[in-house]
Amino acid sequence: MHILVLGAAGMVGRKLLERLARDGHLGGREITRATLHDVVEPSAPDGASFQTEASASDFAQPGEAERLIAGRPDVIFHLAAIVSGEAEADFEKGDRINLDGTRFLFDAIRRIAGYNPRVVFTSSIAVFGAPFPEAIGDEFFLTPLTSYGTQKAIGELLLADYTRRGFFDGVGIRLPTICVRPGRPNKAASGFFSNIIREPLNGEEAILPVPDSVRHSHASPRSAVGFLMHAATIDGERLGPRRNITMPSVSVTVAEQIEALRRIAGDRVVSRIRRESDPTIERIVAGWPQKFDTQRARSLGFKAEDSFDEIIRIHIEDELGEKFVA
Amino acid sequence: MHILVLGAAGMVGRKLLERLARDGHLGGREITRATLHDVVEPSAPDGASFQTEASASDFAQPGEAERLIAGRPDVIFHLAAIVSGEAEADFEKGDRINLDGTRFLFDAIRRIAGYNPRVVFTSSIAVFGAPFPEAIGDEFFLTPLTSYGTQKAIGELLLADYTRRGFFDGVGIRLPTICVRPGRPNKAASGFFSNIIREPLNGEEAILPVPDSVRHSHASPRSAVGFLMHAATIDGERLGPRRNITMPSVSVTVAEQIEALRRIAGDRVVSRIRRESDPTIERIVAGWPQKFDTQRARSLGFKAEDSFDEIIRIHIEDELGEKFVA
Repeated sequence: MHILVLGAAGMVGRKLLERLARDGHLGGREITRATLHDVVEPSAPDGASFQTEASASDFAQPGEAERLIAGRPDVIFHLAAIVSGEAEADFEKGDRINLDGTRFLFDAIRRIAGYNPRVVFTSSIAVFGAPFPEAIGDEFFLTPLTSYGTQKAIGELLLADYTRRGFFDGVGIRLPTICVRPGRPNKAASGFFSNIIREPLNGEEAILPVPDSVRHSHASPRSAVGFLMHAATIDGERLGPRRNITMPSVSVTVAEQIEALRRIAGDRVVSRIRRESDPTIERIVAGWPQKFDTQRARSLGFKAEDSFDEIIRIHIEDELGEKFVA
Repeated sequence: MHILVLGAAGMVGRKLLERLARDGHLGGREITRATLHDVVEPSAPDGASFQTEASASDFAQPGEAERLIAGRPDVIFHLAAIVSGEAEADFEKGDRINLDGTRFLFDAIRRIAGYNPRVVFTSSIAVFGAPFPEAIGDEFFLTPLTSYGTQKAIGELLLADYTRRGFFDGVGIRLPTICVRPGRPNKAASGFFSNIIREPLNGEEAILPVPDSVRHSHASPRSAVGFLMHAATIDGERLGPRRNITMPSVSVTVAEQIEALRRIAGDRVVSRIRRESDPTIERIVAGWPQKFDTQRARSLGFKAEDSFDEIIRIHIEDELGEKFVA
């Protein structure tokens, strides 16, 4: 089985490749080859038994998609994207990569008669826009309030239509906020959701810019990889024509995040969270979805954590070698 | 005020131009100029007090959109489309006209700094796909089951985002089935909804290919023009970022259509409807929405008929000079 990962140098891409290297198979078939691509050259995962080739380029350049699928990969993970903030700041860049790039890929596959790979597309909860019902259900409409969300929603529509027409066999998964993100604090508006857990566990201070009452939905990086693996192997017939699915997540307030951290790591760790309100971040976060009713994903076998405690424990296991600074 | 109509040779385009010529103004401003465009050269409406220019071309050719908006029209009616059946039969043609064509137009406007026309885009209830709730509400999701519906849904998303970013001031209106369509019977799967009214009133036989129990939603051509006029002049602030709106319609069964015809035109006219079941049409129609809850459109002042009787009366007034073959 030959796998192509676009966006292989990103956090989720790297974790997916580590998992594929560890498993050695996908959906019961041996992985024999992996093609990795990103805008910077991705590194091959350690200990993979399969052959890997990595390359770096702008995948929205004419001809690039054709080159990337020349080896007819059986499964294509399309994780490549200009992220929300950048697509908002630079409209043309987001439009070119997120919309044209996705369309070029889909069309390159479409033009190869008889080629019908599974295409897993990572969409985002940014396809939704406020005002929201208390919990966003599986039939809530898409009214994105960012260009990134718009480009993802268009990718979803194309994926569903190309699948319906038999051009390929697509599954789109809307990822919730991934928490706890490993690495250093970043400037994303959502960064604090991870920072307030990760930094205190490292013995460092973290800033909480919003009130404790803010509610948001999370899934761990391990779950994100699980979503991708399941989306790659699920029977397409079970999905019917509705090919884009909101992934499960844990909905908690910031106060509940902090109490989970206290239960697992103690008061001293929690005391490293410093409250410093930031009206800009507060305003951005107020427009985000708080909770999802993801009945469909769950009935299709997609699984996230059951509690925020579990999300913290996974972070300690997967990123900290079971240790933290008490 | 300068108006551009794309798709000006189509049924709705022609009726819109007749109305504009009759009114001479739009939203309280005098119309001084109209640019008409279609794939075949549209004819200027009779008795217009404003200057008209008509041209025919493929509007999805690079550079065409720029040429069409060179005169900086204040209001752009974008009605141009490859229709449902053709976009399904010829994927690349529908994709090129409905998706690329729309995007080229939107981008041509975007690239002119300081130019902020009202863009009225006709979308369609084809953005919805079965299974449906009993009545499709304003927050039901878009899962089109045709490439045409997919291309319209993408146009809606782009329109909303381009409006949000201030590239133009867009309003998307989802038209229901227009009934009674004037002219000769056509082969569209939905044609019979009009045929069974229009042909009997002309003294001719019409074939009803589905059971009487089939339910569907309709608005008259006069209402369709009213939707466009209202969309052209409504205050954008009232809409907020949700710029695409399902238009009101009258939901009736075929039996109710026939009873309305009987009330207005008598038994003899109704006796010209011949039942001849067509399983293909039956199957297609079974996948269509039956009813809409269009609270939002109504609260924004969009108006359709209150009954199917009224739809028939409008046809007799507007198309038959108040006469029919009893």
